[in-house]
Amino acid sequence: MNYSYISHLYCPKCSKTYSSEETQHLCTCGSPLLVEYRLDELAYDWKKDHLADRSPDLWRYHELLPLQDEQYKTTLGEGMSPLLTMNRIGQDMGIHDLLMKDEGTIPTGSFKARGAAVGVSKAKELGVEELAMPTNGNAGAAWSLYAARASMKSTIVMPIDAPKITRNECAISGASLYLVDGLISDAGQIVGNAVQEKGMYNVSTLKEPYRIEGKKTMGLEIAEQLNWEVPDVILYPTGGGVGLIGIHKALKELQQLGWIQKDKMPRLVAVQSDGCAPIVQAWEKGETEAPFWEGSETVAFGINVPKALGDFLVLEALYETDGCAIAISDDALLEEQKKVAQKEGAFVCPEGAAAFSAARHLREQGWIQEEDKVVVLNTGAGIKYPDTVNVNLPILKPGERIR
Amino acid sequence: MNYSYISHLYCPKCSKTYSSEETQHLCTCGSPLLVEYRLDELAYDWKKDHLADRSPDLWRYHELLPLQDEQYKTTLGEGMSPLLTMNRIGQDMGIHDLLMKDEGTIPTGSFKARGAAVGVSKAKELGVEELAMPTNGNAGAAWSLYAARASMKSTIVMPIDAPKITRNECAISGASLYLVDGLISDAGQIVGNAVQEKGMYNVSTLKEPYRIEGKKTMGLEIAEQLNWEVPDVILYPTGGGVGLIGIHKALKELQQLGWIQKDKMPRLVAVQSDGCAPIVQAWEKGETEAPFWEGSETVAFGINVPKALGDFLVLEALYETDGCAIAISDDALLEEQKKVAQKEGAFVCPEGAAAFSAARHLREQGWIQEEDKVVVLNTGAGIKYPDTVNVNLPILKPGERIR
Repeated sequence: MNYSYISHLYCPKCSKTYSSEETQHLCTCGSPLLVEYRLDELAYDWKKDHLADRSPDLWRYHELLPLQDEQYKTTLGEGMSPLLTMNRIGQDMGIHDLLMKDEGTIPTGSFKARGAAVGVSKAKELGVEELAMPTNGNAGAAWSLYAARASMKSTIVMPIDAPKITRNECAISGASLYLVDGLISDAGQIVGNAVQEKGMYNVSTLKEPYRIEGKKTMGLEIAEQLNWEVPDVILYPTGGGVGLIGIHKALKELQQLGWIQKDKMPRLVAVQSDGCAPIVQAWEKGETEAPFWEGSETVAFGINVPKALGDFLVLEALYETDGCAIAISDDALLEEQKKVAQKEGAFVCPEGAAAFSAARHLREQGWIQEEDKVVVLNTGAGIKYPDTVNVNLPILKPGERIR
Repeated sequence: MNYSYISHLYCPKCSKTYSSEETQHLCTCGSPLLVEYRLDELAYDWKKDHLADRSPDLWRYHELLPLQDEQYKTTLGEGMSPLLTMNRIGQDMGIHDLLMKDEGTIPTGSFKARGAAVGVSKAKELGVEELAMPTNGNAGAAWSLYAARASMKSTIVMPIDAPKITRNECAISGASLYLVDGLISDAGQIVGNAVQEKGMYNVSTLKEPYRIEGKKTMGLEIAEQLNWEVPDVILYPTGGGVGLIGIHKALKELQQLGWIQKDKMPRLVAVQSDGCAPIVQAWEKGETEAPFWEGSETVAFGINVPKALGDFLVLEALYETDGCAIAISDDALLEEQKKVAQKEGAFVCPEGAAAFSAARHLREQGWIQEEDKVVVLNTGAGIKYPDTVNVNLPILKPGERIR
């Protein structure tokens, strides 16, 4: 058996194929590239019970990941995050079987670590010595730390108002870190120039094909954790949408392997902020690409992505699975964040809270039924966003009594 | 088979025994109480291969935990944290086989979640409706969130200068949270009064017997992850010392079960800050109890504990295992925190960094040998302590180029 059953890269827009033996970025047509595996061969060689004695991390699925030589594996133990029952908040919403996939317990405190682990490992295998990316925070933190673990240099550019915690994570990794007095698009332009002039490897969202392979492991894990049954609905906070594209890809691959039912796919839901909802707008109009969202603004900065390179893949996943897209207000998601903490003891990130709020709205609208099995993705730890909690507390003097 | 093989509680100082069927706190002699299991019966009933198909969390060891009825299990998926190879920092120190047990990927971002999960579950089973505790931050965050998950009320008192992130965690859980314009000892006094006057369940460190049982699972996991071989040395950042006492207890129980060698125990190392080193002072003098440390101060606030209730148990563990105690300066630990991030991609907490620095010092002194297998406990995520990273970064204007 091979460590990986990777075959090649292909363009989901124009079908052109590329070798996975050298570094690749976008297709000549401008589309992101996806990874194709030798699934027929793998279906013959690989059985579920091979997983039994493997470590509880995402590398347990290495046959379905792009890394070919295990020596380049760069890991901090990421993956197999808990899939938790959420009975009390579920009851509050009228959903009997509500679960949360909790990515707050992943190294670097967010699901970005999955993409970074697989992306950095594959880059290392391909001989990359220095990567570069623009970031709003969490992705830069993850990629710079995994790069450090792989002895790879990194150049990270982030807006000056990105959260301080993620700035510190990048800084302590030893990355060449720059702030830009502007937006993520300004950071992207600076990285674009640096990549051209200095030959760095560009790991901006979907500009290299392997981040999505790391993210897809969320879908593989949900299926395994539910004993190879899929849920009825999966709600995913959607900025760049890489995780949603990845989960969709993972479940289709599992169907081709015969590991899950061929005739049941969960309805996928793209959850956005009403301050930045290009996918929702496109979905409502039945379009296959999303517009640029002007003047975007939300406390859930991870989903503040006005134009996603993979928008057409996100929309395709929604249409193919009879899913939907929904926008949530900042007020509603902050209210939901409190409810989830108080009823379930889980301090979810604002993006995760938006997905819970979306479940509530969709249940109210009848789009989610009482008996549906519903999985909400919480994409990161609430502690990475301390400013979303405002508290006014009683201050006692030493010796004073609680009334 | 029973879910738990708990037998009773006993006092490690005066040997008095207590029932585990009702709530208990300290022994009448003032000592913390420990849990005794029916180990002979368990050795007969329980085999390593029973673990094979259990979830990767600490409840996989439920026979060796105090909860008797699984319906009271209160879990956020805590446990089975990664045991990572640390080859580059190990090489830098001259230690061939250096590993890190990374508790930064546990719910609530610190190892405190283990004690809270088991402690809250058992309290729920015993009928507790409201708990109370003083905290410097992480423990309060963990206990208040797990209490919320168990539908249990909590009252938390923390010094006004405790880290803002942990304050927010407690607040969002719905706990009754009070700040005190004073020290942790002032918080302790306020909780003591509230417990007496309002009948709350006191879960201050070691004042209830079950937190230690949660913490001991770190020892169980290290043994399982090393395929039931123990390492030569385990370094543990020591404030209250509950984890170190727990790891020692776990390994002794595994010896009695016959799951690990009877004649090899790792040398346990208590790592403190030189701004608060009562255990080190006592160990250097060969004493069995530690003095109160006046005017304690360190950036590693989790080990700022001037007097630990379990000091005698920590010292006993060091003497019994031929271990040692060592104090690290804030400068040294902050320097080590950077090195670990840059060489391994791991953003450890200051307490974990102190333990790495201790490994370096002990290797230099020859106390650790080049070929020793050494495990360092990182007790939490670096992101919970953003103020330990100070960065001065270049700020670019939009369109500006990286030089």
